[in-house]
Amino acid sequence: MIITIGREFGSGGRELGRHLAEILGCAYYDREIITEIARRTSLSEKYIQHVTEQKPVIPFPIHTGRTFWAVIPDYNQSVHQEQHKVIQEIAEKSDCVIVGRGADYILRESKPFRLFVYSDMESKTARCRKNESADYEAGEALSDKELAKRIEQINKGRADYYAFYTGQKWGAKEYYDLLINTSGRDIRALAEVVAKFC
Amino acid sequence: MIITIGREFGSGGRELGRHLAEILGCAYYDREIITEIARRTSLSEKYIQHVTEQKPVIPFPIHTGRTFWAVIPDYNQSVHQEQHKVIQEIAEKSDCVIVGRGADYILRESKPFRLFVYSDMESKTARCRKNESADYEAGEALSDKELAKRIEQINKGRADYYAFYTGQKWGAKEYYDLLINTSGRDIRALAEVVAKFC
Repeated sequence: MIITIGREFGSGGRELGRHLAEILGCAYYDREIITEIARRTSLSEKYIQHVTEQKPVIPFPIHTGRTFWAVIPDYNQSVHQEQHKVIQEIAEKSDCVIVGRGADYILRESKPFRLFVYSDMESKTARCRKNESADYEAGEALSDKELAKRIEQINKGRADYYAFYTGQKWGAKEYYDLLINTSGRDIRALAEVVAKFC
Repeated sequence: MIITIGREFGSGGRELGRHLAEILGCAYYDREIITEIARRTSLSEKYIQHVTEQKPVIPFPIHTGRTFWAVIPDYNQSVHQEQHKVIQEIAEKSDCVIVGRGADYILRESKPFRLFVYSDMESKTARCRKNESADYEAGEALSDKELAKRIEQINKGRADYYAFYTGQKWGAKEYYDLLINTSGRDIRALAEVVAKFC
């Protein structure tokens, strides 16, 4: 059993994943994947985090008559390839919950249970203020409007990254088995119910 | 407790709704709403079914310089208004499950639990072939391709109707609490789990 979780930043998807893995007694992967890529590539975790949260910046667009070619920096390419390998290896090892990183697409032939977790902006900003999301830095210093903008930027990066590498639309229902709106809900209680779906 | 179910034609949303009402021991409304509107308006159930499954046909588009005005036939208007009233009345009467008819939007101030049920085309055509959907007539006579086209037309009608009267996008996750892909799933078993969500 493989469960993949796509999640809007600030929606509690990571928390839901952790509870789910605990309830089902299976492995949980999130930042562990970044750590493993860092070990294999000798790149910093921060850099890897950065390039796996947005679509590649393309420094040399080349237009050759009819076709537009994009040259993706080697570092980005190798991070992406290592991520692909790491995710396939962990999925072969045991039952698991994998948060983010396009795992639903990478593992599509294994037919994972594909979850997407989202919420309204009010819930997202409230969750960030409570500092439940480790991704978020210096939230206290931002106004609500600035925080909402930052959250939107992060989610835009995730959507672009996902679209770039999968050709699919991030969060579009046809690519998932279950989509959960966590606005105003207790994440642990949701996880208990979701565990019965998988 | 009010549960509204938006559902793609052929996805088993109606069946899921029936099971859900049974499990929760609450009222279930679907065609009953049509019957009640027919009683109140003296229009035929078939006609009402027709006008509540697609956006109004606009026979007299009027363009006045900057503004486009649409004249909606009186019959369509009154069906829509009666539907609105009937749905509000049944929601006030008791806990219930209401399938389709933009009930999620009509009852938005009562904060219903808003479910959306969908599936892939293969599941939809298979479900129609099994004749589990009472909406469907003469399915046996159509090729798979023709049947898929017919299903798409019906769902396009539902999406247009919903957009016209609610200004929202039918099936877009932000307007729902839970979206369930029923492809290859047992509907009764799904209903058992969904009941715990509500």
